[in-house]
Amino acid sequence: MPEYVYHSIEETDVENLRKLIGDDQRVLFGDAISEDYSHDELGGTESWPDVVIKATSTNDVSNVMKYAWEHAIPVTPRGAGTGLVGSCVPMEHGIVLDLSLMNHILELDEDNLTLTVEPGVLLMELAAFVEEHDLFYPPDPGEKSATIGGNISTNAGGMRAVKYGVTRDFVRGLEVVLPNGDVVEFGGKVVKNSSGYDLKDLIIGSEGTLGLVTKAILKLLPLPKKAISLLIPFPSLEAAIGTVPLIIKSKTIPTAIEFMQREVIEDAEEYLGKAFPDKQSDAYLLLKFDGNSVEEIEAAYANVAKLCLEQGALDVLISDTEEREESIWKARGAFLEAIKGSTTYMDEVDMVVPRNCVNEMVEYLHDLQKEAGLRIKSFGHAGDGNLHAYMLKDDLSDEEWEARVKNAMELVYKKARELKGQVSGEHGIGFAKKPYLQESLATDNIELMNGIKRVFDSKNILNPHKIAQP
Amino acid sequence: MPEYVYHSIEETDVENLRKLIGDDQRVLFGDAISEDYSHDELGGTESWPDVVIKATSTNDVSNVMKYAWEHAIPVTPRGAGTGLVGSCVPMEHGIVLDLSLMNHILELDEDNLTLTVEPGVLLMELAAFVEEHDLFYPPDPGEKSATIGGNISTNAGGMRAVKYGVTRDFVRGLEVVLPNGDVVEFGGKVVKNSSGYDLKDLIIGSEGTLGLVTKAILKLLPLPKKAISLLIPFPSLEAAIGTVPLIIKSKTIPTAIEFMQREVIEDAEEYLGKAFPDKQSDAYLLLKFDGNSVEEIEAAYANVAKLCLEQGALDVLISDTEEREESIWKARGAFLEAIKGSTTYMDEVDMVVPRNCVNEMVEYLHDLQKEAGLRIKSFGHAGDGNLHAYMLKDDLSDEEWEARVKNAMELVYKKARELKGQVSGEHGIGFAKKPYLQESLATDNIELMNGIKRVFDSKNILNPHKIAQP
Repeated sequence: MPEYVYHSIEETDVENLRKLIGDDQRVLFGDAISEDYSHDELGGTESWPDVVIKATSTNDVSNVMKYAWEHAIPVTPRGAGTGLVGSCVPMEHGIVLDLSLMNHILELDEDNLTLTVEPGVLLMELAAFVEEHDLFYPPDPGEKSATIGGNISTNAGGMRAVKYGVTRDFVRGLEVVLPNGDVVEFGGKVVKNSSGYDLKDLIIGSEGTLGLVTKAILKLLPLPKKAISLLIPFPSLEAAIGTVPLIIKSKTIPTAIEFMQREVIEDAEEYLGKAFPDKQSDAYLLLKFDGNSVEEIEAAYANVAKLCLEQGALDVLISDTEEREESIWKARGAFLEAIKGSTTYMDEVDMVVPRNCVNEMVEYLHDLQKEAGLRIKSFGHAGDGNLHAYMLKDDLSDEEWEARVKNAMELVYKKARELKGQVSGEHGIGFAKKPYLQESLATDNIELMNGIKRVFDSKNILNPHKIAQP
Repeated sequence: MPEYVYHSIEETDVENLRKLIGDDQRVLFGDAISEDYSHDELGGTESWPDVVIKATSTNDVSNVMKYAWEHAIPVTPRGAGTGLVGSCVPMEHGIVLDLSLMNHILELDEDNLTLTVEPGVLLMELAAFVEEHDLFYPPDPGEKSATIGGNISTNAGGMRAVKYGVTRDFVRGLEVVLPNGDVVEFGGKVVKNSSGYDLKDLIIGSEGTLGLVTKAILKLLPLPKKAISLLIPFPSLEAAIGTVPLIIKSKTIPTAIEFMQREVIEDAEEYLGKAFPDKQSDAYLLLKFDGNSVEEIEAAYANVAKLCLEQGALDVLISDTEEREESIWKARGAFLEAIKGSTTYMDEVDMVVPRNCVNEMVEYLHDLQKEAGLRIKSFGHAGDGNLHAYMLKDDLSDEEWEARVKNAMELVYKKARELKGQVSGEHGIGFAKKPYLQESLATDNIELMNGIKRVFDSKNILNPHKIAQP
């Protein structure tokens, strides 16, 4: 990797950028920059920008990139800042390009079932908007206040991936500003495409290192008329997770299959100040089914309920009222925040393993606590093999914490590699997970990624030091 | 694009390659090379290889690529040769690497619902194998004797794309031999993946220009228990196609939505020597529904049948016997061959347009016949906007044909661009469609593609002059 020399921002650059943007309120400098811009949601990676620019148009983004390209100024894009791996943190300072004001829904095309949006639209706004039109955007990451641009940048997954897939599966086209400021389009409203290399999918999941997404054409589905959840207590977590491959193989694919343990449920109860509807067991599967009629869903879940009982489930609790449905999924949605609230500081692992290795990994995480001298809590998407494990600092000293978490991380990712898993299922690599990506992939893969980075960004000004870069 | 100088194959190269492969029967040279290796199914692009090597293992492929890399010999991969755009034709001669003997199904993993295969497995073999295990590989391109490697290389689509998606959506992991002979893995059995740039999707659809797929891990689904088709005559093609967006928006998504016209049906009848079950109209929609119970499917199609009748459909013919089902879909499957048989020579357009522009494009193609002085027949996937139009030579002289088809092609692709369509929905670009890709994409897009090609293949030995390359 060649060394890149960047231009340090000076007063004249700020003046020039203000002229380009034409609105001083949207070009922040010095004390005007909030501390928020120096980190993301998890906060382990920190670095301050010299300038923050709040773009409101593709034109703004293009003009800033042209200026940055000409002057070799590093630029780091940022949405809602809800990431967990430092992707939006400006490691080389320079400009943070905040896209959160580009938050307009541009077009609902009911003939082609597409929604065209700016990148700053929040996931919860997008979901609510399409539901109002009896339509459905299936990707459902836990963090609803993330932007769709951030979701695209990390290829966010979420709970409905079992049935519907991930963000990648619902992006039909992108408008992208390249590092040199050129505006290009990848894909479009078309359903099929075999017209050259798949540049669209290269941008998806590239964490703002190859180009800036300024517009996205998303695929929608008709909104399923009904959804019903099953909360299924099992005698052990092993029995619960062991049932998952059988559910997947049965003819009815649930929308979501999550596993949860009592200790995490209790954290959520405390965090939300609200009791969880069931307490009889240490281990649960939480399933969701959607469809267009009660009969269709009932036929589906009756089948799966029977299967779970045959596998030793203690009970099958049907959540068919909106109130109960909300109380269960609200608890599930609060797990991350609840665990965060139960300790002083934490770090996370977002690995994905083949579905039939989830049990082995969960057991490994449980046993690792003793060996690593750390509390570890986990929950996750049993249906797609994507596990979230949280290592908790509690009252460890900074030195102890750093040594233990480093050791534990290395062991967990080593185990994931053994199981033919990948470093990240949905949160991305960013800055924090780079060492583990390096260990997980072959040299060829890393070199191809860095080669592609150079094709898009020969001056290496866009979000440097992320993903595969040193 | 720099000029590349290739080494011409000499007798010593043939000897060396025979030593590498260790089986002279699998290294063909001179007269031993069949004429088939100089073209693909459509036959418009022609060029002979100097050597044909029939690989039987990843090791063979890797060894050949290492030799070719060292000696700067061009290599063109080939599967069943059923392509239509010249992707498997060796424009710079050199080696054709025939992967059709790598045709083993390696592993069915019922826990993770994946099938691991070699690239030479035929689509029809693959489909039959998984159905025996009560499982389902949804992508359904018309050409069942294509290899899965070829399907991956073109991101083949097919009729079930409306409900299930295309080949890309069912490839979880790939083993790839890079141009320098290194063997790498992209993806795996995991369901989600946000671990760096999406190299797997870059390989899919790259038509054997970035690497050779030597193993693929495919995603399977449980096999739907039942399927029923509806053949729906309409008073006009416009009324038929105009109904499609309404069907898509209704709560029931058919597996397939095809449109067909009497003249193409008659070609198929003649080709198959078998009468089509209905003759009352010039224009039909053919819909398929699948599901796990007759009740579920009936509820779905009742809804859609009602909608079609409201839109003026003349009738709704339900194909609920296996015999009738076969006779309809066999006719549909024979369209390409039937049209080919009805003329002396033809060329094809595989454009994809937004779903609500299909009518405008079909009308344009109809009117173009007079203007261009050519018979044009079309059919296609109304549900996903992918149209196949065939320009027929009939008794035109070679000169007349070439001038007229060139003019007609340019007009059709221009129209597709106006409608925000793409050059290829599922057949790829290869050699034959390069000029139209160049016109259709911005310079930035073409340069990014060629830059990526150089990252994978700095010596430009793998399938040169394809897709975006001059």
